[in-house]
Parts: sequence; C-alpha cells; structure tokens
Amino acid sequence: MAERGAEQRIALVLEYDGTGFSGWQRQDDAPSVQEALEGAVSRIANHPVAVVCAGRTDAGVHAAAQVVHFDTTASRPLHAWVLGTNAQLPETVSVRSAHAVDADFHARYQAQRRGYRYVFLCRRARPALLRHRVAWTHHELDEGRMHRAAQALVGEHDFSAFRAAACQAPHAVREVYRLDVHRHGELLFIDIEANAFVHHMVRNIAGTLMAVGTGEQPEHWPAGLLAAGDRTRSGMTAPAAGLYLTRVVYPSHYGLPTRGQWPFLA
Amino acid sequence: MAERGAEQRIALVLEYDGTGFSGWQRQDDAPSVQEALEGAVSRIANHPVAVVCAGRTDAGVHAAAQVVHFDTTASRPLHAWVLGTNAQLPETVSVRSAHAVDADFHARYQAQRRGYRYVFLCRRARPALLRHRVAWTHHELDEGRMHRAAQALVGEHDFSAFRAAACQAPHAVREVYRLDVHRHGELLFIDIEANAFVHHMVRNIAGTLMAVGTGEQPEHWPAGLLAAGDRTRSGMTAPAAGLYLTRVVYPSHYGLPTRGQWPFLA
Repeated sequence: MAERGAEQRIALVLEYDGTGFSGWQRQDDAPSVQEALEGAVSRIANHPVAVVCAGRTDAGVHAAAQVVHFDTTASRPLHAWVLGTNAQLPETVSVRSAHAVDADFHARYQAQRRGYRYVFLCRRARPALLRHRVAWTHHELDEGRMHRAAQALVGEHDFSAFRAAACQAPHAVREVYRLDVHRHGELLFIDIEANAFVHHMVRNIAGTLMAVGTGEQPEHWPAGLLAAGDRTRSGMTAPAAGLYLTRVVYPSHYGLPTRGQWPFLA
Repeated sequence: MAERGAEQRIALVLEYDGTGFSGWQRQDDAPSVQEALEGAVSRIANHPVAVVCAGRTDAGVHAAAQVVHFDTTASRPLHAWVLGTNAQLPETVSVRSAHAVDADFHARYQAQRRGYRYVFLCRRARPALLRHRVAWTHHELDEGRMHRAAQALVGEHDFSAFRAAACQAPHAVREVYRLDVHRHGELLFIDIEANAFVHHMVRNIAGTLMAVGTGEQPEHWPAGLLAAGDRTRSGMTAPAAGLYLTRVVYPSHYGLPTRGQWPFLA
C-alpha cells in the first residue's frame, strides 16, 4: 500500500523519442507521451495522476529535456520517481530527474524560456544510425547565410508568418532570445530560444531558413516574410523528426536544472 | 535489363544500426547485415553478388563506416550503387559512398588499420533517445584513470587476455596504434585503432577499463592482465550496443576515404 501524506507537487525532466507517438497530448485513438507518462506515474503513486507539460510537442518531435509537473499524496524519495517511473515507462521515454517543487510551480505557465534544436543531416546517403532523429537533405546548406538571415527573427515580433493555420493561440507575438545556425560535419543545427512558440513556429522557421541555405531564396527573405505576416508565402514546414525540445527555464527559486540538454554534442 | 561489361570491383562504405541483426555474417536462421546488403546489391547488379567486409561485427554492434567489396559485370554509375542500393536496403543500413577500386583490392586483407569507438552513457536514468546506441551505466567513471590505464595496451602485444574463447584467429598478437578515453558530459568515449582485433577485443578492453573507471580495480590492472595473458582474469565483456566500427584505412592508392566517421560528435 502507498503511504499517504500531504499533497506534494513534483516536477520531472523527461527525455523521449517522439517517433512512435502521436505527440505529447493524450488522444483517444493514438499513443501519446502524456498517456504513457500518466500511466507510469500513477502506478508509482498508487493513485491516478494528471501531468502538465511545458511544451506540447507534435507527433514525431523529440524531447531531450521536457518538463512536467503533477500532484501526489504518495510519499516517495525523489529517486523513486526516476527509477520507479522508468521501470514502468516504454523504452522510448525516460525520466532524467525529479524535483520537489513549491505548490505554485506550473510547468507551462511559469516557463520563462523554451529552447529547441533542429537538426539537419546534409549528405547524399539517407541516415541509418540517425533515422527518425534528423531531417535528411541531399541539398548543400550554407550555414553562414542561414545564420545571418535568421538574425532578423531575433527579438519581439508578431510571428504570424511562421504560425500553423491550426494554431489556437490568441496572438502570435513572441520574443526570440537567440536563433543560431551552425554546422558540425554533415550535421547542421538550428538552436532557438524564445519565451514561447506558436504552433509549428520552429519547423516553419527551419523550413524557411533551409530555402535560404540552398540559395533558393535570398538572405533577406525571412525578414520580409516576418514583416508581411503571411504564412502562405513562407517556407515549407520542416519534418518533425529533426526537432528536439532541449531546454525549459523557470524562475531560479524553483531549483530546476537550467542547462540545455543536447541530443547531439556539437 | 542490366548492361553487361568487364568485371569491375566496387567498394562501398556502409553505415548500419546493428540492433536488429545477428551480426555482419550471413546465417541460415537469423537476419544479418551481409544478407541484407547482398540482396540489395544483387538487385541493382541484376546478378548474384557476394560481398566481403573489413570487419565482421557481432550481433548488436554498429558501423559508422564499414567497408566492403564485391565484383560485378553490371555497368552502373557510382551514385547508382549508393542511391539504388539504399532504395533496396532496410532503413537500418545505408551505403554512404561507392568507389571503383583495382581488382587486387580486398576489404579484409588490405585493411591496414581499423578504428572502433565504444560509447558509455553515464547517468542514473536509462537512455530513451540513445537506447540501443550506447552502453548505459549508473556508475561514475573516471575517464582520466581509464585513459592512463589504457596506455599500457598501446603497441604490439599478445592480446590473449582480451580474446573471446570462441576466437578462431591463429594467434592474438595485434598492434594497437591508439587507445584514448575522453568524456563529453554524460557520454564517455573509448577510441581504439589497431591493425586488427581478436574476437571481442574491444568489448573486453572496454569492460576492463570500466572496472578501472569505477575504482573497482587499480590503474595498473590492464597492464597486469595483458602480461598474464589469461582471459578468465580480465573484466567483463561490455555490451554490444555501445560499439561502433568507425574507420578502416587502406593503402592510399585505392582512393578510399581515410577519415573516421563518428556516431557522436565529440
């Protein structure tokens, strides 16, 4: 039997391979990370648990450091929330760390900054070791052009031009803190941090920067798209497989990790 | 119909995820990389093709740059051996490049140097994104101790102490050119290059160095094991999932790539 105590709020940092999931959010007819995690945590808590996440990732999108919170009356040492939950989770999801947090902590509303990494593999041969982990392109991409073009998107802007039609947010004003493009051998990385993102924002930005990287579009194209605010004119939505949630930052007094976690080391 | 021409020897550089294979070598009752590759190449050649590889990897062992050769009477542009073969291969195997080589080229006998990388993930939580790609340990490993201990194995030695009982090689004398241990965050890398390896040599060395890294054994332990030459006294065989064939070097006049391919970027 579970020991029962006062209600405690717990935060978890999660890693997952999004390939086999229809996304973070629970759905009636498709496997979700939320469903997998709630099932595993509920077994450890010995009562039904609902989890709230920092960023609801799409189908096929990965996380190196998603953050969630939940409330429990079960008294467990923190390592039990890591090891016990991992023993109940499918091998595609892993709890990296657990943290006791104040009752006013909220994984979504108190996140001040979210970071994503988008990874392209640029070579003729399709990936075998990194299949479902990268977006593969046989195009040559000029990372210098991409990085320079990207700088127009840094700052507070209305990102309507990079917003999915299905986006339900009341407006598209977001602040991008950094948007860096760099390369390591055959891998090209786009690292972006913002206060928050509209739906498909990172993948639409990645697709737009890709068109700049191939030379198909000029360096000033993303700046023009941003100003025009028309999604129908911007680049394609880059595939989900290359995208990772890498960092969520909260006010420091909650004691959560602040360092980004990189699925690749460059 | 295939065009027929004079017999030509072709070399391929291959990447594969060894997880679902019983190893490189063709077997009657289990899937092998050799069987998958011979099937795919034979369809592109339009005649039966036998391939010879540089290093016969075990079940679960990966390759970032395996080298094979085969003979064909089919006239194909080199890129057809890459793109055409990849269209026939399972997604866990990919041809990275194809090279027309002299008739005396032999992937196994002319390899002068082979490189492997062994990757440990050192953390409490099991891997999700890197599952089947790393050897996971919750032990703290001291990479400095491991690197210093490893240096006793560099040079020409009889590696009987690190040889599997099943090894069929006539003797165990091999020359190790380098054996480096370094860390990048949670990942610990063992990079080894030698003229050749006896069976399980890299995994037995990795298991032995791990016992030094945890502090369970002293730094001089590998040197003593090497001198004693007794396999029953050395460390465990580290798991296959952390091991990658990363480089095969041939005489330069064959024109094959000489750079190592790293499954991780550090």
